[in-house]
Amino acid sequence: MVQKYGGSSVADASAIKRVAARIVETKRAGHDVVVAVSAMGDSTDELLDLAAQVSPLPPARELDMLLTAGERISMALVAMAIADLGLSARSFTGSQAGVITDSVHGKAKIIDVTPGRISAALDEGHIVIVAGFQGVSQDTKEITTLGRGGTDTTAVALAAALDAEVCEIYTDVDGVFTADPRIVPTARKLDRVTYEEMLEMAACGAKILHLRCVEYARRYDIPVHVRSSFSKLEGTVVTGSINDAPQEGSMEAAIISGVAHDRSEAKITVVGVPDKVGVAARVFEALASAQINLDMIVQNVSAAATNLTDISFTLPRTDGQTAMAALAELRAEVGYERLLYDDRIGKVSLIGAGMRSHPGVSAKFFSTLAAAGVNIEMISTSEIRISVIVKEVDVDAAVAATHTAFDLDSDEVEAVVYGGSGR
Amino acid sequence: MVQKYGGSSVADASAIKRVAARIVETKRAGHDVVVAVSAMGDSTDELLDLAAQVSPLPPARELDMLLTAGERISMALVAMAIADLGLSARSFTGSQAGVITDSVHGKAKIIDVTPGRISAALDEGHIVIVAGFQGVSQDTKEITTLGRGGTDTTAVALAAALDAEVCEIYTDVDGVFTADPRIVPTARKLDRVTYEEMLEMAACGAKILHLRCVEYARRYDIPVHVRSSFSKLEGTVVTGSINDAPQEGSMEAAIISGVAHDRSEAKITVVGVPDKVGVAARVFEALASAQINLDMIVQNVSAAATNLTDISFTLPRTDGQTAMAALAELRAEVGYERLLYDDRIGKVSLIGAGMRSHPGVSAKFFSTLAAAGVNIEMISTSEIRISVIVKEVDVDAAVAATHTAFDLDSDEVEAVVYGGSGR
Repeated sequence: MVQKYGGSSVADASAIKRVAARIVETKRAGHDVVVAVSAMGDSTDELLDLAAQVSPLPPARELDMLLTAGERISMALVAMAIADLGLSARSFTGSQAGVITDSVHGKAKIIDVTPGRISAALDEGHIVIVAGFQGVSQDTKEITTLGRGGTDTTAVALAAALDAEVCEIYTDVDGVFTADPRIVPTARKLDRVTYEEMLEMAACGAKILHLRCVEYARRYDIPVHVRSSFSKLEGTVVTGSINDAPQEGSMEAAIISGVAHDRSEAKITVVGVPDKVGVAARVFEALASAQINLDMIVQNVSAAATNLTDISFTLPRTDGQTAMAALAELRAEVGYERLLYDDRIGKVSLIGAGMRSHPGVSAKFFSTLAAAGVNIEMISTSEIRISVIVKEVDVDAAVAATHTAFDLDSDEVEAVVYGGSGR
Repeated sequence: MVQKYGGSSVADASAIKRVAARIVETKRAGHDVVVAVSAMGDSTDELLDLAAQVSPLPPARELDMLLTAGERISMALVAMAIADLGLSARSFTGSQAGVITDSVHGKAKIIDVTPGRISAALDEGHIVIVAGFQGVSQDTKEITTLGRGGTDTTAVALAAALDAEVCEIYTDVDGVFTADPRIVPTARKLDRVTYEEMLEMAACGAKILHLRCVEYARRYDIPVHVRSSFSKLEGTVVTGSINDAPQEGSMEAAIISGVAHDRSEAKITVVGVPDKVGVAARVFEALASAQINLDMIVQNVSAAATNLTDISFTLPRTDGQTAMAALAELRAEVGYERLLYDDRIGKVSLIGAGMRSHPGVSAKFFSTLAAAGVNIEMISTSEIRISVIVKEVDVDAAVAATHTAFDLDSDEVEAVVYGGSGR
C-alpha cells in the first residue's frame, strides 16, 4: 500500500508523530507500506524566501537542489518517529527511490520509476519513506522537482511501479465533496468518483488532487483514496471510468457529482479584430509562443457594418501580464482596436458522468443561474462538464444555487477541515 | 584552488552574498574554484532539535539523512548567489561529489574521493560548490556524515583528490594564534606552522582546525591556509614537517609556536588500587570497552605500607558519566577504595618544533607556572609539546604567564574575531 502525507500532515513534530502512528498501524495490519511525504508545513516557502534573498532569479537547477532539502528533512523525521514506535523505517530521496524524470527543472515529468532499493527494503521488512516532489533526470543525473502536485504524483507513480492495490492520499479534508464546503455547508462527501470526473473537477478549480496525479492514476488504473489524516473516516475513492459497465446501484446514481469553482482565472478581450482569415490564428500563435495556456475561448459574430469582431479568452491570472504584453506587441500587425483585461471573474462548473445520458442539464443550469440573478459571460462544455464564467462576486451564489437545484445538498452539515493542497 | 566556508561564514543571506563575492573574485583571478560549505549558522542545531522532538534516540542512518539537508540548503544558496554575480556555479552533494566513506553513520571516515563530476563541471568552466560534512558509504550506498570537523576534512580531501595547490579554510578568526586572543590580547598570528605543530595544537584544545583535517592534509601534503572570511588579510599556512630541511630565516624562528589550552576535560582518580600485575590493565580495559578515549594517565608510586596505588587520568567531560559508571561496575572485581571525579581542571600546552633542540623548555615552563602561583597536577610530553593539568581557575593566568615568558607577546593587540569552529 502506498500512502501520501502532505505538508499540513507533517507540519510539526506532533503532526509527524501522528502520521507515524498511522503508518505503523497500517504496517501492523499486515501491509507492506511505502509512504511519500511532502516538506513540512511552510518550509518550502521559507526556502523560497531564502533563495529570493540571495538572488532575484535563481538558476532552476540550484532551486531544485534547495527545495529538495525540504522533503529530505520531513522524510527523515517520519522515519525517526516510526523507529521510536518500535518499527524499522528507511527513508529514500527521490533519486534513491528510482524516480526518473526528464530534465526540466522545477516542473519535471516522471518518465520511469525503478524501485529496486524500495523493493529490497520492503523485502527486509522495513517501512519505506520516500521524498515526494523530487526525482533525478535520466540524461544528466541532476536532481529535479516535479512542480505543483508533485508529491501526489510521486505517490501514484510509486503505487504503479510497485503494483500497489491502492494509493491513499492523506490530506486535511475528509475527501472529495460535491462543492467547496466553505461555500456550501451542506456539501456532501462523495464515496466514489471516476477518473474522468475527478480530472474535470481538478481542471475546474477543485484543489484536492492535481490534474497530473489523476492522469497518472487513470493511465495505470491505480485507485486513489483521498482521505483525512485527522480522522479515521473513509474518504473518496477515485477509480473507474465513465465508460465502464454500470456498477450495482448506479441506476440511482446522481446525474451530477459536483459543482466546482475557480477564482484563479482572468479574462482578456481583444476588441475590434479584423474578421479576416488568419488574424485570429496570429493572436493565438502569439499567446502560445509566450507559453500561455488558455482555457475558454469565445469569438463573437462580427458586426456586419464594420467587419470587426471581438475575441475573448480566459487564462491563469498569473499569466495576465505576460499575455497582455504579447498582445500589445501584436497590435501594429493585427490592427485590433484595444485590449480589455478583467480579473474579477470566476468559473463555475457542473460535473457529472450522468449528464451524458440526461439532456436538459445545461438548460436547468442556466435557468438556475438566471433565477439567482447571475449573469453568464462565457460558456464551455465537455461530455461530462458545463462551465460558465461569471462575475467573481457572483461565484458563491452561483455555486450554492446550482448545488441545491441539482439535489446535491446533504441533510446535515458535515464537519470538515479545508485548506490548500500543498504540493 | 579549494576553499572552505564554515557555518558562521554562511549564516544568513548577506553572509552568503559576501562569500559568493569572494569566490567570484578568486575565479576571476584565474583559478579553478571548488568550495566546500557547512550548513548555515545554527541550522544543524535546529535540525537536531527537530529530531529530538520526534525521537529521543533517532536511528543514525536517518539522523544523517536529516542533517545532510543543512549543507544542501547552504550549497544551493551559495551557487545562486554566485549566479547572481554573473558566473556559473554547480552545487553537488557529498555523494554526487564522489566523497566515498565507510558506513559508520554520524562519524564516517573518508576512504576515497572520486571527483569525476567535479572535474567535468570545472572543465565546463563552472565554479563547483560541494556540501561539506557528508558522503556516501562504499558498500551500502547510504548517506553518511563525517562528524566534527567534517567540512574542513571534506575540503582537504577534495584538494588532495583534485591535486589542488592549496586548501583555504575560511573561518571567523584571522588565522592560528600563539594563544587564544580572548585570554592573551597580545597573542600573535602565526604566518606558518608545521603539520605536526598544528596537530598538537588541535589535540590540545585549539579549536581552529580539527585533528582529522590536519592529519589528512599532512598525509597528502596539502598546504592549508587558515584565514578570515571577514577580511583580506593573509592567515596562517599549515604546511611542511618539523623534519624538513630548515627554511630560509628559520634560524631565527621562535622555539615555541604557541600556547594552547583546553577546558573540555575532566580528571578521574581511582584511589587505593591494589598494586598487582594486571589490575591497572583491567581498569583501562573497562574504559576502552566503554569507548572512552583517555588523554593523560598518571599512576602514583604505591605506598609501601599498604601496597595500594592511585591511578589518575583525564578524559573528555562528556564521557565523564559513562566512565564513572564503567568503573563503578568494576569495583567488586578490582577492589579499589573510591573514585574521585573533578571537572574543574584545565590543560595548558606549550607547543613548538624548536623545543626538540632546546633543552630547558620544560624547566622554564614549570618555573613560570610556579612564579604565577599555578599548581601543576599532571604532566605529559611529546617531542614537540609539554602539557600540564592545572585548576580550571588557573588556566588564564597560566596561559598568559607562559606566553610572556617565551617571548610570544606582540607589541600591539591584533584585532580578531573569535568564535566556535562549527563543523
